[in-house]
Amino acid sequence: MHTKIEIKHAQTSKHDSLHEKRGQKLVGLFNGMEKVKEKEEEEEHVKNCKQQQQQQRCSLWFEEEVERDLRWVYGISKILHIGASEFQTIELVQSVPFGKVLLLDGKLQSAELDEFVYHESIVHPALLYHSNPKSVFIMGGGEGSTAREALKHSCVKKVVMCDIDQEVVDFCRHHMTENAEAFSSPRLELVINDARAELESCNEKFDVIIGDLNDPVDGGPCFTLYTQSFYMNILKPKLNFGGILVTQAGPAGILSHREVYSSIYNTLRQTFKYVVPYAAHVPSFADTWGWVMASDQAFPMIKMEETNYRIQNRIQGELHFLDGQTLCAMLALNKHVWKTLAGETHIFTEDSARFIHGHGRAFKNQK
Amino acid sequence: MHTKIEIKHAQTSKHDSLHEKRGQKLVGLFNGMEKVKEKEEEEEHVKNCKQQQQQQRCSLWFEEEVERDLRWVYGISKILHIGASEFQTIELVQSVPFGKVLLLDGKLQSAELDEFVYHESIVHPALLYHSNPKSVFIMGGGEGSTAREALKHSCVKKVVMCDIDQEVVDFCRHHMTENAEAFSSPRLELVINDARAELESCNEKFDVIIGDLNDPVDGGPCFTLYTQSFYMNILKPKLNFGGILVTQAGPAGILSHREVYSSIYNTLRQTFKYVVPYAAHVPSFADTWGWVMASDQAFPMIKMEETNYRIQNRIQGELHFLDGQTLCAMLALNKHVWKTLAGETHIFTEDSARFIHGHGRAFKNQK
Amino acid sequence: MHTKIEIKHAQTSKHDSLHEKRGQKLVGLFNGMEKVKEKEEEEEHVKNCKQQQQQQRCSLWFEEEVERDLRWVYGISKILHIGASEFQTIELVQSVPFGKVLLLDGKLQSAELDEFVYHESIVHPALLYHSNPKSVFIMGGGEGSTAREALKHSCVKKVVMCDIDQEVVDFCRHHMTENAEAFSSPRLELVINDARAELESCNEKFDVIIGDLNDPVDGGPCFTLYTQSFYMNILKPKLNFGGILVTQAGPAGILSHREVYSSIYNTLRQTFKYVVPYAAHVPSFADTWGWVMASDQAFPMIKMEETNYRIQNRIQGELHFLDGQTLCAMLALNKHVWKTLAGETHIFTEDSARFIHGHGRAFKNQK
Amino acid sequence: MHTKIEIKHAQTSKHDSLHEKRGQKLVGLFNGMEKVKEKEEEEEHVKNCKQQQQQQRCSLWFEEEVERDLRWVYGISKILHIGASEFQTIELVQSVPFGKVLLLDGKLQSAELDEFVYHESIVHPALLYHSNPKSVFIMGGGEGSTAREALKHSCVKKVVMCDIDQEVVDFCRHHMTENAEAFSSPRLELVINDARAELESCNEKFDVIIGDLNDPVDGGPCFTLYTQSFYMNILKPKLNFGGILVTQAGPAGILSHREVYSSIYNTLRQTFKYVVPYAAHVPSFADTWGWVMASDQAFPMIKMEETNYRIQNRIQGELHFLDGQTLCAMLALNKHVWKTLAGETHIFTEDSARFIHGHGRAFKNQK
Repeated sequence: MHTKIEIKHAQTSKHDSLHEKRGQKLVGLFNGMEKVKEKEEEEEHVKNCKQQQQQQRCSLWFEEEVERDLRWVYGISKILHIGASEFQTIELVQSVPFGKVLLLDGKLQSAELDEFVYHESIVHPALLYHSNPKSVFIMGGGEGSTAREALKHSCVKKVVMCDIDQEVVDFCRHHMTENAEAFSSPRLELVINDARAELESCNEKFDVIIGDLNDPVDGGPCFTLYTQSFYMNILKPKLNFGGILVTQAGPAGILSHREVYSSIYNTLRQTFKYVVPYAAHVPSFADTWGWVMASDQAFPMIKMEETNYRIQNRIQGELHFLDGQTLCAMLALNKHVWKTLAGETHIFTEDSARFIHGHGRAFKNQK
Repeated sequence: MHTKIEIKHAQTSKHDSLHEKRGQKLVGLFNGMEKVKEKEEEEEHVKNCKQQQQQQRCSLWFEEEVERDLRWVYGISKILHIGASEFQTIELVQSVPFGKVLLLDGKLQSAELDEFVYHESIVHPALLYHSNPKSVFIMGGGEGSTAREALKHSCVKKVVMCDIDQEVVDFCRHHMTENAEAFSSPRLELVINDARAELESCNEKFDVIIGDLNDPVDGGPCFTLYTQSFYMNILKPKLNFGGILVTQAGPAGILSHREVYSSIYNTLRQTFKYVVPYAAHVPSFADTWGWVMASDQAFPMIKMEETNYRIQNRIQGELHFLDGQTLCAMLALNKHVWKTLAGETHIFTEDSARFIHGHGRAFKNQK
Repeated sequence: MHTKIEIKHAQTSKHDSLHEKRGQKLVGLFNGMEKVKEKEEEEEHVKNCKQQQQQQRCSLWFEEEVERDLRWVYGISKILHIGASEFQTIELVQSVPFGKVLLLDGKLQSAELDEFVYHESIVHPALLYHSNPKSVFIMGGGEGSTAREALKHSCVKKVVMCDIDQEVVDFCRHHMTENAEAFSSPRLELVINDARAELESCNEKFDVIIGDLNDPVDGGPCFTLYTQSFYMNILKPKLNFGGILVTQAGPAGILSHREVYSSIYNTLRQTFKYVVPYAAHVPSFADTWGWVMASDQAFPMIKMEETNYRIQNRIQGELHFLDGQTLCAMLALNKHVWKTLAGETHIFTEDSARFIHGHGRAFKNQK
Repeated sequence: MHTKIEIKHAQTSKHDSLHEKRGQKLVGLFNGMEKVKEKEEEEEHVKNCKQQQQQQRCSLWFEEEVERDLRWVYGISKILHIGASEFQTIELVQSVPFGKVLLLDGKLQSAELDEFVYHESIVHPALLYHSNPKSVFIMGGGEGSTAREALKHSCVKKVVMCDIDQEVVDFCRHHMTENAEAFSSPRLELVINDARAELESCNEKFDVIIGDLNDPVDGGPCFTLYTQSFYMNILKPKLNFGGILVTQAGPAGILSHREVYSSIYNTLRQTFKYVVPYAAHVPSFADTWGWVMASDQAFPMIKMEETNYRIQNRIQGELHFLDGQTLCAMLALNKHVWKTLAGETHIFTEDSARFIHGHGRAFKNQK
């Protein structure tokens, strides 16, 4: 089923007035694009929050089981909005250390104070390496931040964002105002569908396809979007010549990169001619995170200066995490991780999938 | 069977032997130098631990308050050794996610499975950038791992390790066998003294001085070893021409680098002519960690290949984290952190110190 | 001062002595018999601990999963002793809220500040209801506290304590000095054996048999000591005329009494002519705890005054929890729990056992 | 300001339909009066919840700091409703171990599965001891459960419930349907006012005054409602001859009764001629809880049978916790607690108040 969503204005009138006032203040802060400019205001806000906390400790806590015996636990000062879809529960909460946090089925998806790291990283490297990206297809990404970053590229004429869960999309459109501009862009085409089904049935090809998917988790159907057969048979035919696939690829830290990262890397290496893994530390995920780019045409050697030049010429608005030097650093994985990647032989198939415990981004596209 | 028990002495020989077997196995694993070779055995061990854990959840947990409302919590499966000095308590525990962990005053100092990241990072960049380092002075470092890494450089003729706490040194020498070789090296000179007092009174100069100190924490005396006056008046006079200071500099993550990292960087920038900050993610610290090198003589531009060449020629034994490419990545801080460093104006003095909450390495040198 | 260190043997004698002093102080405090008299000293100690804690939060925590999503978590300020047997690990730790705590396999067995509630409750009601108890058999109880309470009855000539784990017995004898007197009593006969095997093979009968066993837990062999066939065939034949069995019977709170308490009660009701359940709140167990007395001869109606009279006449030393009025309160379960007990039809057999999650006392007698 | 509230029907139409369905199911379960009859359905529900939990652990947790180093932590499976008043935040959440839980300012007030213990205990003893209670004044109690219990007494003609926070009252009236009947009773008079001000200004006297207040907490104004001057000058003049005051009196466990319970008891003993303390374990409070009754006329000696007779004759609907035997047990505090109460000399005044850490019921009436 292919549903084209009409864009309407956020119905803020629905909130009660008390909430609206507080809500807007916080929503304003969640705007990644304005983050650095608003730093002082933000720090003031955080300071106030922390002073309040002096009097009263948090009693609601979010606990992520990174592994069975490793927990990342942070205080929640306020429940901002609650919702539910047929697929999952949806919550927007105010966390003390990471600002506003979006939870799907109780799993952290995105945190106000560092989501720019993840979203700049998943979008810009592929778009900057491409000589002239005009069309982008996002698998998942219902939150809107990945689309927001892609739309910063003035050469991009069309972004298709394909998420399975309409409620999540509606929820984020209404409550995460930092993506409001993206959601209302005429260049954005919003599709509510399973990404695999959508790619199979659509007749277009794209310059860049982005896998902003949840991690492969045992029992979830989403792991099929990391398999060799999916990449080979469904996805690759939808890439234009020179087209690039980039996918989030799970935790890539010193202790966690063997869970799925090395396998996704190797699976792509066995499927595409050119593969580039990279990684960056995302504080709210409690780990270094990994992504992999893949193409059947060679990636050019781009120097720092050229990267900075392309950022300046192609991108409207400022990036806060990524520049030429940062991209260099992300691409230069450390010796320990490289050694694993180089020696990895596992190929991700439906019969031999690998899963991660409960790390980070989860259950987004489950049916 | 009816056994009437005579009161006899506890048969410690019995359970000691049980313990001993397990202990030795684990101690062997803690040997960073053998880590990669022993990967399979290690993974087997971790798998067994985790299977055991299926039956029985951890009931002892170590909780680090990264911030007031942010906790890093991991399961402890066994208390291995306990001790105490006049300065602090000393514990060696078996953690599930990070292997053996050394705690001083209940604060994580070093974890078996990723200590090589921290210790390779604090030692090798400065020694590799130096044209011919012969003498090294370590402030703190009682655990022995920093000395172990420094002694890998065959050009180094003398390593002075100056820690204030003899018990910690003794404890680590006996219980952390991976550093046994280092502790017994004739090139190691072990001094039990306050690092400041030691530097003030000693007549030698050094090629590299390493600050393997605990973080500046409010109320701790150690923060004075991060002040401009200490660097200027005490430390710099003890550096030979071409000498390099490198110090650990606290958390350097997207959300944490303003706590002390930017200030330590700026303080050194106001004190030395050439300053080089760098960082890497250390999983057990739950953050990206920062270090800063400083010198009054220019750092040479060293390419990846030259770094790899120096590693091959100078270092005995293998590095597991660092190579030319990794060093590049560490030096290329991201745009967000660079912007803060570039704009930082705070100078760390005894009257205007900055402190961190309770992050990572703590209280090592307190009097 | 510049001290060149010779490598010498660890001066364990030094820090041992430090430890010893502290240890002895704490061990002294664990003496339940002196608890009330030493209240002021104790409160001083607790106050000091808490003031210390103002400066430094606990980083080691003990977490008991009362249920899957309910945790009872308390700070550990010190590891006092560690040991292990062929059956389990044994630890004595200093907790902040409950004083010294004995852990077997990481499960709380007994806490200094409230163990008198559990141990007075399991021992004295049966011994006070018996007209003239001379011999007592304790199944389990290796810690020694149950024997200590039984030995307070001057009419008791012989206490057989039968625990399967010699190391636990040795550990407690050495480290829990409050039971030292009990352990050295000529009236105590210590047997290292499985309680079932011991009862089967012994030729004696007893006036009171006490089941100070761990809870029935899935996979543990100890649950067989709660079955009807055990009570009927093994235990009952070892009771003298007028003899009383009393057993701990798991959590008996408003929300937890259906787990095993009602079933143990009903099983005894189907096996003995007279059965008396009772309960009391034990803070460190995070619940109300239950016990059941059973006999084939009628329990006399004893008024408060008679209970107080018997306490005064039979017991040497003071009770801190139990008197006539308290016993009345323990026997008068609330309406909600009584209703469940009255309606319970489940009988505990080897084929239809009930288990509890991970509550409280565990794994003590496992083979 | 004295506002008399008109009763209106719960506007369930406001919820979205998805929520309504789930909500009603859960709200139905929260109905204390139907609890036992619906036990099977309830257990089915809990079983389902727990099976769900097998697949997915809780990630939202409520943590109560019972003391600084003692935590009571339970999983939250769903946020049901959120609100806020000028005094506090208001949340209704679905907890796994305790069912629906009402939180004010993040502090647990009442839990579905055991609120009947607290509310039967605070209401019925005083009303049963009174020969013919016709009028009841409740200080606090905005949740409605205390009024619900009082209205079960057919002899009671008027219940005045005086809570300071209209939003809490409105929230509970709409979302806690088990109290709907009470809220719509013509015998209930709802007053939004500070309890002290209301008592001072009103001209009536009452047969029973119930202090369903939050605990005395440092910095909160509510502690003044526990002072001798309040009892003497404001409250006592509003009691009819034979009138009884009953107040919640904080934790009364073996380890916690010295915090405020003994002091409140002694303060009342110094103010009224006859004082009766009692206590019961409330699982969700993680402790035994205390109440104190006080009167200037003697309490009659009522036997169990008489209590049961009065319950049968006066109370419409069934009690689930309390009967004659249970009341006996509650009144018979254990020896340890009695000893403290008997020896307590502290009197609670505005200048010498005692406070508890953060236990249980909090901040309800703060201005």
